[in-house]
Amino acid sequence: MRIITTIGGMNEVLTRLREDGKTIGFVPTMGCFHEGHLSLMRKAREGCDIVIASIYVNPAQFGKGEDLDSYPRDLKRDSEMADRAGVDFIFAPSDQEMYPQPHLSYVNVEKITRGLCGKSRPTHFQGVATICTKLFNIIRPHKTYFGQKDYQQSLVIRQIIKDLNLDIQLVVCPIARGRDGIAMSSRNKYLDSDERKSAPVLHRSLLFGKKLIEEGEKNPEDIKEKIKEMICEHNGKIDYVEIVDPETLEKVKEIGERTLIAIAVFFGKTRLIDNILV
Amino acid sequence: MRIITTIGGMNEVLTRLREDGKTIGFVPTMGCFHEGHLSLMRKAREGCDIVIASIYVNPAQFGKGEDLDSYPRDLKRDSEMADRAGVDFIFAPSDQEMYPQPHLSYVNVEKITRGLCGKSRPTHFQGVATICTKLFNIIRPHKTYFGQKDYQQSLVIRQIIKDLNLDIQLVVCPIARGRDGIAMSSRNKYLDSDERKSAPVLHRSLLFGKKLIEEGEKNPEDIKEKIKEMICEHNGKIDYVEIVDPETLEKVKEIGERTLIAIAVFFGKTRLIDNILV
Repeated sequence: MRIITTIGGMNEVLTRLREDGKTIGFVPTMGCFHEGHLSLMRKAREGCDIVIASIYVNPAQFGKGEDLDSYPRDLKRDSEMADRAGVDFIFAPSDQEMYPQPHLSYVNVEKITRGLCGKSRPTHFQGVATICTKLFNIIRPHKTYFGQKDYQQSLVIRQIIKDLNLDIQLVVCPIARGRDGIAMSSRNKYLDSDERKSAPVLHRSLLFGKKLIEEGEKNPEDIKEKIKEMICEHNGKIDYVEIVDPETLEKVKEIGERTLIAIAVFFGKTRLIDNILV
Repeated sequence: MRIITTIGGMNEVLTRLREDGKTIGFVPTMGCFHEGHLSLMRKAREGCDIVIASIYVNPAQFGKGEDLDSYPRDLKRDSEMADRAGVDFIFAPSDQEMYPQPHLSYVNVEKITRGLCGKSRPTHFQGVATICTKLFNIIRPHKTYFGQKDYQQSLVIRQIIKDLNLDIQLVVCPIARGRDGIAMSSRNKYLDSDERKSAPVLHRSLLFGKKLIEEGEKNPEDIKEKIKEMICEHNGKIDYVEIVDPETLEKVKEIGERTLIAIAVFFGKTRLIDNILV
């Protein structure tokens, strides 16, 4: 496995790979790898000749007061894990390489970025859409791999691929979970031991919501209330609990055929998200 | 020369051309060709193996009440002219092909889109940046050709190429002018005979401004006033007359080494733009 830090270096490698007709799989990340990232890399390893993972903590997707500075970074550990998962190249550029000044262009996605995480993080998806457009143009992969944990993000990526005519196949992989059900997240590191013990209530509450729906409950408000109660009992502070259409992310008034339950909850200062498709 | 109307059709052709190692030159247009367009095509013909021109009247770059519906369209005439200028392929997609619904993603460029034409056409450059990003991703040219007449547009294109890591060389070509100095524009067709007689004052006023600067005038306000007077005498209704830094498009307080004089003026209902680098 090789670590490449410049766009020029990446270009050199990619020109050769494309000439050789290799299919390229790309896993964009912010590093601090956990089983979720590794599952994307392994999936890319199965589906492509060459696997490239990027590690870049993208300032543009953090809001003011968010955890940009404290976001965990450990290139050495990440490299070893990526190597074992079958990654061929890590692209780990600097801020100067990704955002030479003046940087003035941003990709904005309407509608599907307004609700859920977009509400409490109003510039987040602009940052995600912009960095992913940049990375897609640098790597020009055949396939790219994202996790369902960031469900709204995966829809944003699907939308920019379609709208901006990027010739890339998006593969969305299932949420990787701990044995207690907690969704893998780099931010789980922030939890103290009490918070860590409480956090699995997120997944339990989603399974409970799913069960209510499967048993015939049609009123999303009732389901949301019960989920909220369950989370509050475990000291979670609700950012949102929403039941939405999985394509448009618009709130549903009555439970229909396909539904997404999506939640964002603070444990202490740490904001965690999770979701389930029903 | 071939006319291609679908992205799939274009992809097929481009895959073959790239395999053959051809350099691709791209001239994005809204059709209604004049000498300005043809000069871009000829320049592309000189510099590339294959020349592709797109013809697409992009709804997203027209504001409400602007001339989207009346914008002149004549694919047969355009094709003949492009053929003679050495174009190999015309890409002429439908609205459905370019904006299958829901289309939610837009490229926005900050700062340099605020002044000049951005002031009276607030969504124009978002439309331009978005359609050009789309077309660049569809065609993936080595070089793209734009005219200096739309100076602000050329800066926007330069910025998205840099910011979104598009691997394209931008070539900006000089303004094509009629014998009386009028800048070639598809919108010149809208002028009645009196307006057509008046319009060359735009170029004369720019040359006059240039002369004042070359003679040592340092105060942009004085120069702007004199240009405005000259245009008003010929029944032009000023949208803007600005003297700006040619890189940032910010207004200059004192004339420095490099300056852009840019103007937009209505003759009747027709809005014309022109500029000069000093």
